[in-house]
Amino acid sequence: MDTPPIDVSLLYDTGQVRVTGDGGGEMVLHPHWLRERSHEAADFDPVTRQRLFEPALLPADLRVVGMERSSEDELALTFSDGARCGFSLTAILREAGWLDDPETPPAPQPWGADLDAWPGADWAALEAPEVLRDMLAGFARSGFCIIRNTPTQPGTLESIAKFFGHLRDTNFGPIFDVITKPQPIDLAYTGLPLSAHADNPYRQPIPGIQMLHCLENGVEGGLSTLVDGFALAEALLAEAPELARVLERTTVRFRYESDDTILENRGPLIERDGDGRLVRVRFSSRVDFVPPLDPETLDMFYRGRSRMFELAADPRFEIRFRLDPGMLVMMDNHRLLHGRTGFDHAAARRHLQGCYIDHDGPDTMYRVLSRRWRDGEGSGREAA
Amino acid sequence: MDTPPIDVSLLYDTGQVRVTGDGGGEMVLHPHWLRERSHEAADFDPVTRQRLFEPALLPADLRVVGMERSSEDELALTFSDGARCGFSLTAILREAGWLDDPETPPAPQPWGADLDAWPGADWAALEAPEVLRDMLAGFARSGFCIIRNTPTQPGTLESIAKFFGHLRDTNFGPIFDVITKPQPIDLAYTGLPLSAHADNPYRQPIPGIQMLHCLENGVEGGLSTLVDGFALAEALLAEAPELARVLERTTVRFRYESDDTILENRGPLIERDGDGRLVRVRFSSRVDFVPPLDPETLDMFYRGRSRMFELAADPRFEIRFRLDPGMLVMMDNHRLLHGRTGFDHAAARRHLQGCYIDHDGPDTMYRVLSRRWRDGEGSGREAA
Repeated sequence: MDTPPIDVSLLYDTGQVRVTGDGGGEMVLHPHWLRERSHEAADFDPVTRQRLFEPALLPADLRVVGMERSSEDELALTFSDGARCGFSLTAILREAGWLDDPETPPAPQPWGADLDAWPGADWAALEAPEVLRDMLAGFARSGFCIIRNTPTQPGTLESIAKFFGHLRDTNFGPIFDVITKPQPIDLAYTGLPLSAHADNPYRQPIPGIQMLHCLENGVEGGLSTLVDGFALAEALLAEAPELARVLERTTVRFRYESDDTILENRGPLIERDGDGRLVRVRFSSRVDFVPPLDPETLDMFYRGRSRMFELAADPRFEIRFRLDPGMLVMMDNHRLLHGRTGFDHAAARRHLQGCYIDHDGPDTMYRVLSRRWRDGEGSGREAA
Repeated sequence: MDTPPIDVSLLYDTGQVRVTGDGGGEMVLHPHWLRERSHEAADFDPVTRQRLFEPALLPADLRVVGMERSSEDELALTFSDGARCGFSLTAILREAGWLDDPETPPAPQPWGADLDAWPGADWAALEAPEVLRDMLAGFARSGFCIIRNTPTQPGTLESIAKFFGHLRDTNFGPIFDVITKPQPIDLAYTGLPLSAHADNPYRQPIPGIQMLHCLENGVEGGLSTLVDGFALAEALLAEAPELARVLERTTVRFRYESDDTILENRGPLIERDGDGRLVRVRFSSRVDFVPPLDPETLDMFYRGRSRMFELAADPRFEIRFRLDPGMLVMMDNHRLLHGRTGFDHAAARRHLQGCYIDHDGPDTMYRVLSRRWRDGEGSGREAA
């Protein structure tokens, strides 16, 4: 990525603005694109930070007709409809992706078992904004973090969850207990091993982030496992692209049913956005229902899904750890798969509490902390 | 769609099952696809209704090697690994989409201003399951419904919302007031007209369903407006497919910012699933930020977005109504755009309360009611 100094020029024939970097990089900016980013008093409300004009009503043939650069960062543009707007070149280049934006959480980095720095912190240490921001950066990169030395009173999870975001209520309740029960109605409530899966792909919307909080754990075994679904998707794409493409293209129905609840949602096992970025992995092999496609496509779907299952169980991709009392794992349920090894629950108790929050929470927290941090750093440096 | 009688045959060479309808329709079913739907005691837990086996571990070359049809509906299949499983042919054909499934909510039907039956009911009448189910069917088809004669005490919305699903808390609070305020911090709190928009496309996840409940309305004007975003998307695709495709392909960033909150989410203005079905329209022209694409693509993006804006304001697509005290509108925020006409708030008050719930709620309710309805009808007919 280039950094300033950069050259800015007005292309008079098209009314566009060209930015040229030292390293030879070039970007041509559209007049509408620039105008939509005007922060002039007539265009932009400083309280709601929303546009005050309807951009659809700008002239279709809008052009930049004049340009002044009064400093390294300040650019004033005159448009063909007479408007004159000032811009921060740094802000424009951050938004365009030419410069890193310090407020944006880091991009996901797929990981395997050799991930060396597990994101996490002590609960008490999170009072320091820089520790919190650092842990949230790790969460954005790796899709999970581990918080240690939290209080172990039942229900504590609710206040911890609310620190990070809004609690998402479901028909399991806002907080649910994962504990061995004499007559289990779900495999989660036994000592059986659970293979790597994402939670509740049948809900609309799918829960964004899961938290699991350990209150008590006296059993042998029962290790928690995590696998990065994005790493599995990339591995499958590398070794068998034709299978990965079928998993990306096939819309699968996920379904949960009990006497008084029927939940359904649909989507592919591997989901990318329009720019090819991975945005979601759905993997829950007890509740997925593929449509009756032609047998050749289904052959490939089943081969791809089986390969994903093998990769998810491959020690190359899995990390394992014991959740001790006071430990809490927070994981991105659109990306990570989680499971546990089996344990004997006759001799001792293992009691976790779980809940869901939305992606909004940690994402907003990271952005706000980063803005304050940046502003703080700025004043600090200027004061020094 | 064909209905039984149908013919079922085993294709010995491939181990697949072929279904042939009276009308000549044909469907070939994959051995894995069938086996995954087994309800045998060893395969399926009747309490959790989940698979008891890991489907990824089925033999890759699994085949159906034997078939018996003991009645119109009962099919027993023997698989190459020795398993023998019974199936309901009706259940299989419903899942395959060959027969309608009475539990599945109706598919969306795009609508314009000439929509003649607006889904809705009196609050008291919703105590009758058939009235409730009928209204939810209309909600699924048209993306909104109107409930009349609800209580008008402030806060009533919370109990109404919880009847339909789980309340979604946001930084606006679980219930928010839409009322004219002396020093408005948002256009919503003025008497100004609001053009058609979806709420909060910058949240992760985007709120699924919005409810607006009228407590008081003495003003002239201030009519509520609704537009079907799916109808706009289909209209744009019909008149300018190249513009519609750019709106489908371009990942736009939506952003909300205040002193202590920064919310971002991304997605296209028109989103379809892998099967081409419309699943979401994002339209909120004050908070959308398109990436700096090449100027030719951006030209098309801006033309497409402007055309969507024109269509959204076109009386052909808009319905208008006055929200009187006790009226509540429930709308699918992934599909419908809403707005209001301007009004003079000096002379009288207009007070709405709003909240969000998830799609899960009404969808589950429709499915459960339909299952009971079908079971009830069954017993009724047998008893008669």
